[in-house]
Amino acid sequence: MSRSVNAREKLLDAAVTIVRSKGFAATTVDDLCAAAGVTKGAFFHHFPSKEALGVAAAEHWSKTTAALFAAAPYQQVEDPLEKLLAYLRFRRDILDGELCEFTCLVGTMLQEVYAEYPAIAAACHEAIASHAATLEPMIAAAMLARGLDPGGASTDWTASGLAIHSQVVLQGAFILAKGSGGPAIARDSVDHLTRYVRLLFASAGTVPDPSP
Amino acid sequence: MSRSVNAREKLLDAAVTIVRSKGFAATTVDDLCAAAGVTKGAFFHHFPSKEALGVAAAEHWSKTTAALFAAAPYQQVEDPLEKLLAYLRFRRDILDGELCEFTCLVGTMLQEVYAEYPAIAAACHEAIASHAATLEPMIAAAMLARGLDPGGASTDWTASGLAIHSQVVLQGAFILAKGSGGPAIARDSVDHLTRYVRLLFASAGTVPDPSP
Repeated sequence: MSRSVNAREKLLDAAVTIVRSKGFAATTVDDLCAAAGVTKGAFFHHFPSKEALGVAAAEHWSKTTAALFAAAPYQQVEDPLEKLLAYLRFRRDILDGELCEFTCLVGTMLQEVYAEYPAIAAACHEAIASHAATLEPMIAAAMLARGLDPGGASTDWTASGLAIHSQVVLQGAFILAKGSGGPAIARDSVDHLTRYVRLLFASAGTVPDPSP
Repeated sequence: MSRSVNAREKLLDAAVTIVRSKGFAATTVDDLCAAAGVTKGAFFHHFPSKEALGVAAAEHWSKTTAALFAAAPYQQVEDPLEKLLAYLRFRRDILDGELCEFTCLVGTMLQEVYAEYPAIAAACHEAIASHAATLEPMIAAAMLARGLDPGGASTDWTASGLAIHSQVVLQGAFILAKGSGGPAIARDSVDHLTRYVRLLFASAGTVPDPSP
């Protein structure tokens, strides 16, 4: 049984790597079995279909990236706005290495299969939305500290909307990184997003600036 | 010969529709021929391979969207910052209808095939970069009007970088729209981008505000 669990994990890890390199449709069950070093029988023991593998890969991605973020340095920052800015610095820092290493499995799958595989699309969207939800408390607390309502009663934006927007920028940054062949253009967009967050809170009133 | 030109255009239009619906790898030559109402012989008369069709589809997309933007209302706005804001309003307005109608062919292909088909990726990136380049003069003029250097000598951002960032936001917005099943989330991100542009120029100095 532990060997079987192992085969499942190996197939999911293989999916993360191969789908990020060549997309979901071009990734065959044979590709996945070869990379994971398992038989086709083992594949279909764990996943009734390639679609089921896609759903499980999105959930696996969500779980492994959640662990990465839970252990990231920004979690130690107390001030909510500073914590959000530290999160963005962390996202910028990990834009490094090969494109297939720093780009996003669930954004890649969602882009390609949203119409053909609604179950995969739903799992990918859930992965992005649940990560965005981890940012909401920081943004809400930073808004409250400035007398703003996180639900948008006092602004034309909300904590949840800004959290989603941050993921929009990151997803778009991955695409342009793919187009330009490297992460520089993506880092530049994270800088724009960081500047936006600073301006948004600076325009909202008291901010860690010259005045006490 | 005009019938032949027609077959080529029909195949390119079919590619725009089908690839936006199901991705490049899942789109077969048979799919394209059936949708265009042409024979496989006609396909291979015009395109030596599916990769060549992908490159031509990116170029076709670039040409047809350039015509759309050239005829858009924002082109009539004189003030450069107002023109940029009108461009963003236009982008927001056309986020409407079915996902496969308002999402981006070249962003979709780039996301999926960047590693497997470098020629397609290059054509997609060129399509995005050449559109971004049409925004640069507006941004540069708006910066100059505020005494800022478009090359970034006086700011930590440049006209070309902001132009690219606008496309990053739009590309990311398409992905989240696909995840949420509609354009509302994408429109919200264009609102965030619009707010960013306003804040960026407001913080840069004189801006169309209360004071004359």
